[in-house]
Amino acid sequence: MRSASRRSEIPVFEVMQITDEVARRRHAGHDVVSLCAGEPSARPAPGTLQPAGYTGPLGTTPLREAIAGHYRKWYGVEVDPARVAVTTGSSGAFQLVFLTAFDPGDRVALVSPGYPAYKNILSALGVEVVEIATGPDTRYQPTPELLEAAVRERGDLAGVIVASPANPTGTMLGRSELHALVNWCAGHGARFISDEIYHGISYAPDGPDRRGVSAVELNGDAIVINSFSKYWGMTGWRLGWALLPEDLIAPFEALASNFALSPPAPAQELAMRAFSDETYAERDRVVEGFAKARALILDAAPSLNWGTAAPSDGAFYYYSELGQQLERYADSSSYARALLEGANVAVVPGGDFDPVAGHRAVRLSYAAGEPAVAEALDRIIRFQRD
Amino acid sequence: MRSASRRSEIPVFEVMQITDEVARRRHAGHDVVSLCAGEPSARPAPGTLQPAGYTGPLGTTPLREAIAGHYRKWYGVEVDPARVAVTTGSSGAFQLVFLTAFDPGDRVALVSPGYPAYKNILSALGVEVVEIATGPDTRYQPTPELLEAAVRERGDLAGVIVASPANPTGTMLGRSELHALVNWCAGHGARFISDEIYHGISYAPDGPDRRGVSAVELNGDAIVINSFSKYWGMTGWRLGWALLPEDLIAPFEALASNFALSPPAPAQELAMRAFSDETYAERDRVVEGFAKARALILDAAPSLNWGTAAPSDGAFYYYSELGQQLERYADSSSYARALLEGANVAVVPGGDFDPVAGHRAVRLSYAAGEPAVAEALDRIIRFQRD
Repeated sequence: MRSASRRSEIPVFEVMQITDEVARRRHAGHDVVSLCAGEPSARPAPGTLQPAGYTGPLGTTPLREAIAGHYRKWYGVEVDPARVAVTTGSSGAFQLVFLTAFDPGDRVALVSPGYPAYKNILSALGVEVVEIATGPDTRYQPTPELLEAAVRERGDLAGVIVASPANPTGTMLGRSELHALVNWCAGHGARFISDEIYHGISYAPDGPDRRGVSAVELNGDAIVINSFSKYWGMTGWRLGWALLPEDLIAPFEALASNFALSPPAPAQELAMRAFSDETYAERDRVVEGFAKARALILDAAPSLNWGTAAPSDGAFYYYSELGQQLERYADSSSYARALLEGANVAVVPGGDFDPVAGHRAVRLSYAAGEPAVAEALDRIIRFQRD
Repeated sequence: MRSASRRSEIPVFEVMQITDEVARRRHAGHDVVSLCAGEPSARPAPGTLQPAGYTGPLGTTPLREAIAGHYRKWYGVEVDPARVAVTTGSSGAFQLVFLTAFDPGDRVALVSPGYPAYKNILSALGVEVVEIATGPDTRYQPTPELLEAAVRERGDLAGVIVASPANPTGTMLGRSELHALVNWCAGHGARFISDEIYHGISYAPDGPDRRGVSAVELNGDAIVINSFSKYWGMTGWRLGWALLPEDLIAPFEALASNFALSPPAPAQELAMRAFSDETYAERDRVVEGFAKARALILDAAPSLNWGTAAPSDGAFYYYSELGQQLERYADSSSYARALLEGANVAVVPGGDFDPVAGHRAVRLSYAAGEPAVAEALDRIIRFQRD
């Protein structure tokens, strides 16, 4: 197996580790006076500002344990809380995982269309991005054959990033397809990074894998990244997590303690409510709402008169070519700009997700809910007619 | 002048820019339906989770304007709000500024003892760290002469990082000393990065520069980094900012939109209260509390029987060599460990801040306040006697 990156060989920021140690000793009943962290403890009067306090660089122990519990509940798999690193959104997890796992010059594969920040973060960190073009034939997902072809063309891979449900397409990998990819990586010494931030948001019929299959069920060395922003809807709080293989925990902590100090504390406190039966039930009802908004788009598709759309298995995205609409616009960016200015509807042009074919496509997020989606569809259809 | 780094030449994440544009259009009175961001808008019932919503990658417009107002109030200087980038703590600012300004192989100077994350982040990003050893003769601060010597020994510098008040020493630069450093950088094509996170926390007699001199007063091309965690005491919320020179705004935004999406929204909302007369008065009272805790340490210094201490002009740190105490311990790390285990007092050994001489020193943070500091000093003195 590959080792951690050379660049992760920086010392952990000791202050944050001692802060962690202080918390552990207090938890064990010791009366510790800490002159350690640069943390003003004088509480301001209510009504103005509130200190929240740094937490350990990998998050609070109760939250790390609660996240491990989530894997037991949803996936029936035991995860050691020590392998859970709470992060500043999944963005915080991606940048720290990439720094921990890859050095400049390493090659990492991902698919196009795909989430643009993967490749932009990687390339800013000097990692060579191997973009694999996908289409309807593989449901816009990678396959072992596509990875083999990438290796033949570009050389050995240090890592592969997979998302299911994917952004922008919403397509999902079944258990056997995911397993084939995980196995391919294990056999080729490549880190498998599984972006699972849309788990729990899917529209398949009930079944054991309906919420998504986690890579951690298949291989303990997979790196899993998740977030409180999507299923739990905690956007803007900036809270996510990574599940790390044993060998990457210490290098990840060294990087996290220097790059981020700690993830946001108020968000960590709020997130403790995420794993109650009540919250799961409530969030499942939100997903039912997404399903209705999704149905509105699928029903309106003939009237939109666009081109090929990706099968939207999960997440809350509808990714479609614009087809004939492009007769009047140079590309999907001009279409999107005209739509925003002419009809006050914001959609995302596909160029961000796919440098090759994305200029013909747009992504709609139906996370805005039924009424907004209905109104937007009306406006789009009227805008296209006028 | 140097240009932005080559690695910052990544595309901005368009979704976050469109989100920004949607906010602007709504602010201007337009009824915009956004199918843009992957943001669930269905509000969960009160009592469980709360969405906060992404903001623009550089923060909300009102907060950026309020921060500009702070520069008018404290420093009498006009700062264009477009140059203010709100970040996920000063940590978020450091990593993004370093990525924006420096490429692998560039050389950046900083002093030792100093904040360890500067050098650890830089080296993880492939930047060559030029560590300048300082001592009591220059109040642990750099001088143009020390920078000249560094260039002679190591080659041209791409940047210089200065902190006043400094961590761990607390020492401050006067206006003319800071000006000399800013001018040296301007004359040598080096970016000047001024860490001002401890501004407002100082113990000098009243005067125009008591809160600290901002590099932005002296040169519009200086990069200033600040935080809501120290003077305002909002630790754990993870909120800070950078003032950027004109040419770095777009590359910084491209990196921020990919690496972070947006700074935490609830923290941004809370921080809007930071700039009221009431809050400034309240925080100044907190600083008076730090002054009392600091006096306790200075008064107890003879009984501590340690070695040379840095003059603690500002921040809330007391950095001192341990002197004779090291007769019983291999280094300050063993001393600190024994103190935590034997007397339940946490202090930070100096090795984190200074790889050369730090093993003989410790840093006390007196941010914990008078009662905690008094108790800690009692325990330390008893611990050393037993």
